Amino acid sequence: MTQLEMAKQGIISPEMRKAAEADGVDPEFLRQQIAAGKAVLPKNKNHEIKTLYAIGAGLSTKVNANIGSSGACASVENEIAKLKAAIKAGTHSVMDLSTGGDLQAIREAILEHSPVMVGTVPVYGIATRLHRKRIPLHKMDVDEMFKDLEKQCSEGIDYITIHCGVTLETLKRLEKSDRLLPSVSRGGSILLNWMKHNGKENPLYAEFDTVLEIAYRYDVTLSLGDGMRPGTVLDATDRPQIEELVLLGELARRAREKNVQVIIEGPGHVPLNQIETNVLLEKRLCDGAPFYLLGPLPTDIAPGYDHITAAIGGAIAAAAGADFLCYVTPAEHLSLPNPDDVYQGVIAARIAGHAADIVKGVKNAIEKDRLISQYRRDLNWEGILSMAIDPEAAKKRLSLAYDKETCTMCGELCAVKLSRQFAKR
Amino acid sequence: MTQLEMAKQGIISPEMRKAAEADGVDPEFLRQQIAAGKAVLPKNKNHEIKTLYAIGAGLSTKVNANIGSSGACASVENEIAKLKAAIKAGTHSVMDLSTGGDLQAIREAILEHSPVMVGTVPVYGIATRLHRKRIPLHKMDVDEMFKDLEKQCSEGIDYITIHCGVTLETLKRLEKSDRLLPSVSRGGSILLNWMKHNGKENPLYAEFDTVLEIAYRYDVTLSLGDGMRPGTVLDATDRPQIEELVLLGELARRAREKNVQVIIEGPGHVPLNQIETNVLLEKRLCDGAPFYLLGPLPTDIAPGYDHITAAIGGAIAAAAGADFLCYVTPAEHLSLPNPDDVYQGVIAARIAGHAADIVKGVKNAIEKDRLISQYRRDLNWEGILSMAIDPEAAKKRLSLAYDKETCTMCGELCAVKLSRQFAKR
Repeated sequence: MTQLEMAKQGIISPEMRKAAEADGVDPEFLRQQIAAGKAVLPKNKNHEIKTLYAIGAGLSTKVNANIGSSGACASVENEIAKLKAAIKAGTHSVMDLSTGGDLQAIREAILEHSPVMVGTVPVYGIATRLHRKRIPLHKMDVDEMFKDLEKQCSEGIDYITIHCGVTLETLKRLEKSDRLLPSVSRGGSILLNWMKHNGKENPLYAEFDTVLEIAYRYDVTLSLGDGMRPGTVLDATDRPQIEELVLLGELARRAREKNVQVIIEGPGHVPLNQIETNVLLEKRLCDGAPFYLLGPLPTDIAPGYDHITAAIGGAIAAAAGADFLCYVTPAEHLSLPNPDDVYQGVIAARIAGHAADIVKGVKNAIEKDRLISQYRRDLNWEGILSMAIDPEAAKKRLSLAYDKETCTMCGELCAVKLSRQFAKR
Repeated sequence: MTQLEMAKQGIISPEMRKAAEADGVDPEFLRQQIAAGKAVLPKNKNHEIKTLYAIGAGLSTKVNANIGSSGACASVENEIAKLKAAIKAGTHSVMDLSTGGDLQAIREAILEHSPVMVGTVPVYGIATRLHRKRIPLHKMDVDEMFKDLEKQCSEGIDYITIHCGVTLETLKRLEKSDRLLPSVSRGGSILLNWMKHNGKENPLYAEFDTVLEIAYRYDVTLSLGDGMRPGTVLDATDRPQIEELVLLGELARRAREKNVQVIIEGPGHVPLNQIETNVLLEKRLCDGAPFYLLGPLPTDIAPGYDHITAAIGGAIAAAAGADFLCYVTPAEHLSLPNPDDVYQGVIAARIAGHAADIVKGVKNAIEKDRLISQYRRDLNWEGILSMAIDPEAAKKRLSLAYDKETCTMCGELCAVKLSRQFAKR
């Protein structure tokens, strides 16, 4: 049985217990959320996961780090270094998006070394092979694609992105649209390309039942990809994007009916005042399925700093109910991230998630803020560092003034120290 | 006549013309906003400013960088290096908050080298002198404080923070409050300390007319300080903070009546779901006076990354109507910032301000996003870099794949490139 199947039958699995404990929630509450499709517990039957997390409503916001090689930068060692950086920074999930080097070796190494859930985009495998042989991507063999998909599921991948929401309709709708960037989704554009050249429906949509059968077999959570996510704030919340979301909502229902756990991927590049609407739309159109956001970036003009831009959008989205933030690194739009970029990306996304958790009713989220603030009141630097999201980074920057009590920012003219003169403690 | 006086009389000053041009707005519109107290144009009569900016409703969000020495880190050279870093990163304003070394020399150097408006907190001067002589701060001589204030105004400081909103009432209210951190404002805590020990009213409040006379003489804009700003998300929007804001609203009105330009300083540490309320409250209680925010930080747990945390809060605040963002650097809460910290802080605040400008109706703000996105569609890297908020940083990270057309993030499996196969251009 899948986690969803057990949850529906009232069974609290050992995995649910562990994930509930990690979040400090009641296992029965988590079971109910999973049964209702409002939370997922990605864990492949064939994958041992050291630290289990559930994702969804009523739980803390989770963070994913995209790692993986590209054609221009490919080595197992590099990817393991990125995995380690992501884990050290506190990610709850990693996705192996490799498209360069020995994909099988990289995937196996990540599956072996990751203490947290691992996701992939299976279509990248066949696309990479075709590209290497200089065969146009629209020659992709559908059976081979499904074989890849099943292989990755059998190997233990916990969740997979399936771009089942781009269809022949999407191509028509794109023609009628004045989108600046037709698609910024690799998976989505591979399938649109295939559809355009073959005049056939997206196999991941047409044969969605096959996808569900495979996912069910290994209890792989489906992450319904957003091939039509906007690639600029000017394209946000447009007709192609929203039509895809409507379709994803229907497919999500089909998945749940077949006891397959499902989450929905979302934009992307979204202006500040449309983020909340995007979250509410997803929750409504997809019956409360967990929402997995890439960013969103509320401006396009900050390459080199997109982890900051994404933290802005991610915090607003998560506060509005988004459940899972895919990090964005400072390298986004410019190069494959290195381990330090990965680290910075995870920290920024965790800050966004925590700021949201304080206000979205996550139990005890604000206690960390209370503790660090009490330590600040007491000028207890060890305490402050211990509660910091990144104690090592904070320690590196800490510089105490001559009194050894205050930091060099204000020195002994420290407001906290001065407060002792006029305020009770 | 002050800029406010001229604006009220229907005169468009040369300074208004320049500031309107910098913002791409009609000079008459700017005049009206200044006359209504909804915008300010900080420029001391005795200070030549190369690049003039106005701050307020209907204008782009402006950014300030706090520089200045502390007792533990003090050199003119270092402060000039920080000034240059702030300017290079595109700040619209700097504040010299020095409390260490030769304050006069640092202030003069900053005034001389800054191409943008310069602000100070005059009370730091006398507090620093007392502290050096190991004289308790509550022995501060009020006449000497006012002399300092006038001296800085006569030297050309364009705006000054005046902590006139903390009063004897504040001390009583603090006693009745369960604030975690009584005050995190240096200026505010200096004055509260003085009041507590002397049992007398805050001279900046009691003698606010004297402040107004001095400010009027040099056309110094008053920035009404928030001594009661929360220092943790747990203290946000509490009674001491809001009572001070009410008082600042009354004082702001008195300033405008005397033809003194005025802005209001705001928090601080504020949970995500209280930020908009704080902006709306300020606008309502202070008759639309420009709002100058420090942060706000929607969580306390990220020392070492508070520029990111502040970007989250600042973007939300500015989108809700805040006009002026005081940057926060990665060194906040840990040490005096170095030039690189200053640079990172300004960039993060500018990203927040720009993301807000897109949605707060700032004319042409989104055109930069449109252009960079068109360049992205065309894989025109020179164009992309030219539109980036920090072209140098973006260029350093840019790494092109073998095809010289796509970056190494996705390599040749680039969605933008693949889009050419199925979408019109």
